[in-house]
Amino acid sequence: MGKNLTRQLIERHLVSGTMKPGEAVQLKIDQTLCQDATGTMVMLEFEALGLPRVKTELSAQYVDHNLIQADFKNADDHLFLRSACRKWGLWFSRPGNGISHAVHMACFGVPGKTLLGSDSHTCAGGAMGMLAMGAGGLQVALAMAGLPYSLTMPEVVGVEVSGKLPPWVSAKDVILEMLRRYDVKGGVNKVFEYYGPGLDNLTAMDRHVIANMGQEMGATASVFPADDILRAFLRQQGREADFVEQKAEEGADYDHREQLDLAALEPMIACPSSPGKVVTVREVAGKPIYQSYIGSSANPGLRDFVVPAKMVAGKNIPEEISLDINPTSRQLLEELSRSGDLNRLLQAGARLHQTGCNGCIGMGQAPASGRISLRTVPRNFPGRSGTKEDRVYLCSPETATASALTGVITDPRDMDMDYPAFTEPDTLNDMRPLMLAPRDTSNEIPVELEKGPNIQPLPEFEALADALSGPILLKAGDNVSTDEILPAGTDILPLRSNIPAISHYTFSRIDESFYERAKKLDGDCFVIGGENYGQGSSREHAAIAPRYLGVRAVIAVSMARIHRRNLINFGVVPLLFKTPEDLTRLDQDDTLAFEDLPGQLREGNTVTVQLADGNTLEVAHNMSEEEVATVIAGGLINEVREKHLQ
Amino acid sequence: MGKNLTRQLIERHLVSGTMKPGEAVQLKIDQTLCQDATGTMVMLEFEALGLPRVKTELSAQYVDHNLIQADFKNADDHLFLRSACRKWGLWFSRPGNGISHAVHMACFGVPGKTLLGSDSHTCAGGAMGMLAMGAGGLQVALAMAGLPYSLTMPEVVGVEVSGKLPPWVSAKDVILEMLRRYDVKGGVNKVFEYYGPGLDNLTAMDRHVIANMGQEMGATASVFPADDILRAFLRQQGREADFVEQKAEEGADYDHREQLDLAALEPMIACPSSPGKVVTVREVAGKPIYQSYIGSSANPGLRDFVVPAKMVAGKNIPEEISLDINPTSRQLLEELSRSGDLNRLLQAGARLHQTGCNGCIGMGQAPASGRISLRTVPRNFPGRSGTKEDRVYLCSPETATASALTGVITDPRDMDMDYPAFTEPDTLNDMRPLMLAPRDTSNEIPVELEKGPNIQPLPEFEALADALSGPILLKAGDNVSTDEILPAGTDILPLRSNIPAISHYTFSRIDESFYERAKKLDGDCFVIGGENYGQGSSREHAAIAPRYLGVRAVIAVSMARIHRRNLINFGVVPLLFKTPEDLTRLDQDDTLAFEDLPGQLREGNTVTVQLADGNTLEVAHNMSEEEVATVIAGGLINEVREKHLQ
Repeated sequence: MGKNLTRQLIERHLVSGTMKPGEAVQLKIDQTLCQDATGTMVMLEFEALGLPRVKTELSAQYVDHNLIQADFKNADDHLFLRSACRKWGLWFSRPGNGISHAVHMACFGVPGKTLLGSDSHTCAGGAMGMLAMGAGGLQVALAMAGLPYSLTMPEVVGVEVSGKLPPWVSAKDVILEMLRRYDVKGGVNKVFEYYGPGLDNLTAMDRHVIANMGQEMGATASVFPADDILRAFLRQQGREADFVEQKAEEGADYDHREQLDLAALEPMIACPSSPGKVVTVREVAGKPIYQSYIGSSANPGLRDFVVPAKMVAGKNIPEEISLDINPTSRQLLEELSRSGDLNRLLQAGARLHQTGCNGCIGMGQAPASGRISLRTVPRNFPGRSGTKEDRVYLCSPETATASALTGVITDPRDMDMDYPAFTEPDTLNDMRPLMLAPRDTSNEIPVELEKGPNIQPLPEFEALADALSGPILLKAGDNVSTDEILPAGTDILPLRSNIPAISHYTFSRIDESFYERAKKLDGDCFVIGGENYGQGSSREHAAIAPRYLGVRAVIAVSMARIHRRNLINFGVVPLLFKTPEDLTRLDQDDTLAFEDLPGQLREGNTVTVQLADGNTLEVAHNMSEEEVATVIAGGLINEVREKHLQ
Repeated sequence: MGKNLTRQLIERHLVSGTMKPGEAVQLKIDQTLCQDATGTMVMLEFEALGLPRVKTELSAQYVDHNLIQADFKNADDHLFLRSACRKWGLWFSRPGNGISHAVHMACFGVPGKTLLGSDSHTCAGGAMGMLAMGAGGLQVALAMAGLPYSLTMPEVVGVEVSGKLPPWVSAKDVILEMLRRYDVKGGVNKVFEYYGPGLDNLTAMDRHVIANMGQEMGATASVFPADDILRAFLRQQGREADFVEQKAEEGADYDHREQLDLAALEPMIACPSSPGKVVTVREVAGKPIYQSYIGSSANPGLRDFVVPAKMVAGKNIPEEISLDINPTSRQLLEELSRSGDLNRLLQAGARLHQTGCNGCIGMGQAPASGRISLRTVPRNFPGRSGTKEDRVYLCSPETATASALTGVITDPRDMDMDYPAFTEPDTLNDMRPLMLAPRDTSNEIPVELEKGPNIQPLPEFEALADALSGPILLKAGDNVSTDEILPAGTDILPLRSNIPAISHYTFSRIDESFYERAKKLDGDCFVIGGENYGQGSSREHAAIAPRYLGVRAVIAVSMARIHRRNLINFGVVPLLFKTPEDLTRLDQDDTLAFEDLPGQLREGNTVTVQLADGNTLEVAHNMSEEEVATVIAGGLINEVREKHLQ
C-alpha cells in the first residue's frame, strides 16, 4: 500500500510522537502567518519569550482584519506589528495588500511545507500541497520560536474527485456539498485529502475555496496535491522555481474514502445560521434579498469577481439591493481594474470596499434588520455579520450575483444568460515589493517596538504557589461560552493587545460586577462552572483575562477542549467535579483552600479542596504530566522560557 | 452701479424682507439636498408635516456618511431613506454613488437656482452660479414643503481673481490663503463672490474646492459666475442644456472688496487643530507623517486624484505611511479605473477606500496616536478624525502626495519632478441611471415607509400650557456645548433617527443621572445654564431630546444663536436671567412655576417665575413675535402644520 500525501507531509515533519490516529504528534513548522486581530497578542507573546529573531523558514504578518480605524487603536496596532516584523525578521504586509490566506498563497506558500497560522482559515494553504493549519496565538508564537507544534494524529479521508463542474456550478458548491454530507463536526480529527482525475478541472484558487472551508467541517486540514495546475499558479505569480511536486503514492491507503463527482453537482446554499445547513439553491429560490456580498478568503480567486462582473455587464442592480464587492488583494484589484471588470461592476451599481476581510468578520456591511444577505464568505454563525438575528446564506459568486440582479434568491442556471468564460491571466503583479522584507537582524542597531498607549505587554504570571486560598468569585451555570467569559465585537476587539483594558469585560455578560469585585479583592480567587465550561471560540483572552484578575483555578462539571488547554497555557488549574452533585456543595463567595497543590497535581488525579465549613471536597484533574508541569510553571511562556530557550 | 450676482440671485428668489445687510430675508428654495446622517431626521420631520410630496423643483437624498454598517442601523436608514424618496418624490442616490455635493453638482445643480442642504458644505454648489447654503434639518424639511427659507441678508465681498496658479499650487491653496486672511469667523454674515480674469484659469471643480471651504470662514455662501468654463463642465456631464449664464452686472457694487493674485500663491497648509491656522508648507516642512488622506468634498475633482496618481507612478510609498484614497463618486472611480490612474496609485501602495465621506467625518481611517495626518478634507477640529488629541493638517493633494512619498511634510515644489499634466475628459458616465428617480406620486398605490426598529417617528410635542410647573432637573455651568447636551460619535450617531434611544445620552457628559431622573419624573421640568449655553454644532437633537424628556424652558445667562433657534423650533422656551447674579437664586431640584406663560411671552419681554420659597423672580426673553408664536404652538412643525399646510 502506498502512503497518502498527508502521512508523507506529517512524516517528513515529525519531531516526536507516533503516527497513529488519536495519538499526539509533534511537528516541525516551516512557515507561520498571523493576521492583525490575533497577531498583536502573538507578537506580545513572542516578546515575552525573549528571542532575537524568528526561527522558522518564513513568517509573515498580514493586516486584513482591523481595517476600519474608528480611533487610534487599529492604526497603532498596524505600526506595532510593523515594528515587531522589523525587530524579529518577519515579512510585514501593509493594510490594503489583502487577505492573509490568498496573499500568502500568492507570495510565500511552498508545496511540501508546514504552515501554522493564528487564523482558523490558514488551512486554505492545503490547496498548494502544504500541511496548513490554524491554531491559537501562543501556539503560533512558539512555532515562530522554533518549537514543534503538537496535534492529535488525524485520520485521513481520501476524497476521489471525478468529472467536471457543469456551467454555473463552481468550487463553492463543491465544499457546500461536502458540508451537506459532513456538517460542522464531521471533520473533527480528520484531514480531507483530495485526489483523482477531477482535480484537473479545478484551478489552484478553486482548491483554495475547498481547503479554506474544510475548517467549517471541523477538519484538522485539507490537502491537495502539488501538480501541474499548481505549477501554473506559481508560474503566474513569478514563482515557478518554488514548485515541488507533492502527491500520494500509487495505491495510497486512506482511513476513510469518499467519492465526489463534480459533474453531478448543482448550485448549493447554506441557510441561516450554520455552514452545515446546506440545501440546493432551488429549494430556497424566490426569497427577497437585501444584499449580495462578494469576497473573503472563501472565494478569493480572480474568477470569483470576473464571473460576477461579466454577469452584471450592461445591467443595473436594483437600487434597493446592495451588491458589495470586497477585493481579496491588491493584485486582484489591479487586475480587475486593468481588465475593465471593475468598471463593469461599478457601472451596474456595485459598491466597492477596501481590500481585506471586512464584513466577513463583522467589520462593516451589516445587513438591514430582518433582511436576507447572500454571502460568499465561509461562515454564517448568528450575529457574525454585525446584525443580531441576521439571515445570512452562504453561496457561490454565481448564485450571489444572479440573486442581486433579480432581487430574490436565484439559481444562476435559471438566468437567461450564457455562462461567462474566464481565463487566468499569464502573469499577475508581484505584491512583495510593497511589503517589508525580513531584515538581517544580526548586525544592525536594535529596533524599538512601537507601542501606542493601547499596546500593553503581556502580564507576567508567577508559578503556582504551594498554598492557595481565596473566594469563589463566580459560580456560573452550564455551557458558559468564551463569548460570555470575554466578549468580542467592534468595541472590545480593538483591545486584544491590552489585557488590563480588555479584562474590564471579563464575565461581563454573566455578571457585570465581576471586574470590580476582582479588583477589590486583589488576590487569588476561583471560578465554578457547570457542564461544557468554555465552549465556543478559541480566543486565548478568555483564559488570560481571568488569570490577570487573579483566577487561579476553575472547577467545573466538564470543560471544552480548547479552553481547557488555554487555561493550562496561562497557568490556571482546570479541575473537575467528581459528580455533578458536588456542585451544590459550593456557593459564590465561599472560601476555598488548597494545600500543596503542585504536589497533589503531580501525584495523581485527585485534588483535595478545604471548604470554609471545615469539610473537604475531592475533585479531579485530567492533565497529562506535561500539562501539569506547564500549569505549575505558571503557564507555557514561563515554562518555555525556562526549559527550551536558555 | 451694477448689481453683483449674489444680490441678483437673492432678489430673484425674494419672498419677503428687505435686502439690507443684517435684516431678515425670506427666499424661495428651488432645490434641496440631504445626506444620510441628517436626512433621516429631515424625512421624519417631513413626515410629521403630513404632505403628499415635496414642493421643490428638485430634492435629492444622498447616502454618503453612515457607510460603515457596524450593525443593522445604517442599513435600515438607507432603506428608510429610499422608501421616503419613493413616497414623496425625491431622487435617491444609493450608497457607493458618492459624496452629495459633488454628485449633486454633476447630476442636478442648475445655475441661477437656490439650493438648501442639510449639510454645512452644501455651499459648494456656489461653484455653479447657484445660491447654495447649508442649514439645519428642519429648515430643509420646510423648504421641501415649499416654505421660504429665512436668513440674515449678508454683506457681499467681491473677490477679484487675477493671474494663473503656478505649478504645484492648486485650488486648495487658494482657499487656504483666504482662510489665512479671514480665519474661521471672518466670513460670518458674508457671501464671497468671485469674479475677474483669473477665473478663466480655475475649472468648475477648482471652484467647488473654493466654494466648499467658504464654510470654514463662517460665510453664508460663496458664489462664482456661470460662464463658459461651467458650460464645459455641464457639457462633460451631458447636461449642457441646463446651462444658464450667471454673472455680475458691469461695474457691480460690493460691500467689501478683496484681491487675489493666483500667480503669487504658494503651497499652504492649515495646522492642527483649526482650518484657520494657515501657514506655508515650507514653514512646517520636515515633520514626519503617518498618513496622507486624499478625498472628501473639499478636493473632489478628478484632477485631485489624477495628479497624485501621476506623482506616485512607478514609485513605492514607504510601508509605514498610509496613503488613503477616498474616491468622490462612482463616476470618478470609473474614470480613474479606465485611465489607469487607479492602478498607478495601487501599485505604489495606496489603500483604496469606498466612495463617500469616510474619514473626513471620523468614519474610519483614524490616525495613530501622536502621529501627523495630512488631509485634503475641509476640517481639522480636534478629535474629528476619530483619534483624540490628533494632529491633522489640511493641504492640497499635491502636498499630501509629496509628503507620502518622502515620509515628511514636503512642499511639492521641492520634489525633483515635473508637474503632471491633466486634461479633463470630454465626457463622463451619467450617474442618474443608478439612482431612483422621483416617481409620479399622484396616481399610484401609496408607498409605505420602511422603518427598521431604529427608526422611530418624531415625537409629537403639545402646545405650551397656560400653567407650567416642575423641578429644575439640571443646573449647568458656563459654555455648555451641544456636544455636552447630546454627544456625537460612532455609537451615538447611528441613533439620530431614534429620539427615544438617543435621549438616553442627554446631558450624559455633564450628569449621567439626567436621563434616569427625567424618566422617573415623567413630567415638565427645566434646565438652568450660565453664559453661552448651547454653543458649538447646529445639531437639532440637542433641542429635541431634552424636549422629549420634558424640558419646557431653559433659563440661562446667555445663549448661542443656533441652539436658541433650535429650542424655539421644538417648543422649548428660551429665557434669560436679567443679571448673572439671579443665577444664584436657583438650585437644582427647586420647583419653578409659571402662570399664563403664553400670555406673558406675548405681552412683553419679562416673564415672572414663581419660586418654591414663595418669592418670584423676573427673567427676560428676546424672542420676536413670530418666534413667540412658534414656541407657544409647541414648535415649528405644529405651527406649520396648522397655519401653512391646511
